[in-house]
Amino acid sequence: MSDAPVQDVMPAFNLAIVKEIRHFIVEDLRTARRFLKRVDRSIDIDSLSFALLNEHTSPADVPAMLAPMERGEDMGVMSDAGCPAVADPGALAVAEAQRRGYRVRPLVGPSSILLALMGSGFNGQSFTFRGYLPVEAPARTAALKEMTREITRYRRTQIFIETPYRNNRLLAELASALPGEMLLCVASDITGERESIITRPLRQWRTATYDYGRIPAIFLLYQ
Amino acid sequence: MSDAPVQDVMPAFNLAIVKEIRHFIVEDLRTARRFLKRVDRSIDIDSLSFALLNEHTSPADVPAMLAPMERGEDMGVMSDAGCPAVADPGALAVAEAQRRGYRVRPLVGPSSILLALMGSGFNGQSFTFRGYLPVEAPARTAALKEMTREITRYRRTQIFIETPYRNNRLLAELASALPGEMLLCVASDITGERESIITRPLRQWRTATYDYGRIPAIFLLYQ
Repeated sequence: MSDAPVQDVMPAFNLAIVKEIRHFIVEDLRTARRFLKRVDRSIDIDSLSFALLNEHTSPADVPAMLAPMERGEDMGVMSDAGCPAVADPGALAVAEAQRRGYRVRPLVGPSSILLALMGSGFNGQSFTFRGYLPVEAPARTAALKEMTREITRYRRTQIFIETPYRNNRLLAELASALPGEMLLCVASDITGERESIITRPLRQWRTATYDYGRIPAIFLLYQ
Repeated sequence: MSDAPVQDVMPAFNLAIVKEIRHFIVEDLRTARRFLKRVDRSIDIDSLSFALLNEHTSPADVPAMLAPMERGEDMGVMSDAGCPAVADPGALAVAEAQRRGYRVRPLVGPSSILLALMGSGFNGQSFTFRGYLPVEAPARTAALKEMTREITRYRRTQIFIETPYRNNRLLAELASALPGEMLLCVASDITGERESIITRPLRQWRTATYDYGRIPAIFLLYQ
């Protein structure tokens, strides 16, 4: 869930569904409660149950979280800043639900990965999301080489992310390590007030002025 | 745009924006007009301009479509059944807008690829969308092999599509060619009335009863 008004980034349908759910699996308790209050101030949050599923959760603890579904009740999965289970927690709960043969119903919402791809102008018929690039030099160099190969050989758009304080360093690295005619799109603060999606050849990024140092950004490469 | 009620799959914000746009780039004229009428019956469709951008369009014709933007007016890109520029036309217009330095603003909407990934329970930290698999036998076999490698080596979810009348054949092919413990998710009629998202080991798909022969479906592999 971004900071944008909920009606800007979510269908009204989701908000109606949310109000009928009593049991949630969430990435962060405080963010989830705040979101529910924004959906409807009259929701009695203390009557709801919340299970935490984030990077600190042991996969072994996930099956027990689905107890309400075992009793025939619906559950909702919510993540903090995007679509659950896509570059965000949630997939383990969905996988467990699938193993048990429960019905799973994804709701339309803002995915900065998908919005960045839409706004980049790059190939949307074939693309790869890689999460974070490896940190260590040899693996990182190998990743850059593999991305270049997938772009030139398969026309496959390459999408990846970085922690904000390293964004500027990553951008400089891409600009110096990759061919100047390769296109880089930087999509920052997606659905936020300072949203910006800029596609340029790396040659131009080399001399451009930018500061993505404190902004969540998605990086996309294509040619 | 799916057949689901617009408020189920689109934020109210999109509908407000659509009403302010006079110039559209669309995949299909009839679908676009019908969608606009559903958004608001009072829209005077004959006063709007539409340029066609689909698989029959020559890339050379795209720059001229952006004439309204040259005059400072906003334009909207709409595709028939999903998010523009993601496995749907639109990217060429966005790329041209990016080349000219125009502001591009993607709107949240239903992407069956993303919804299928959310509902599969598969890895959403790393995934590849491949569009259609190659048709010819050697290239198709190579694609299956490469997908298996990307799953086992990089834990990368593999996503692809097929034309509906070939869905059953593809499913049988995957079930016989790939290891029985590999997981296949079939996500069909996403956001539609018969929406179904089922993840099972290929071993189980081999003996399962199914008929996806007339339904748009997304296929996902993981292990």
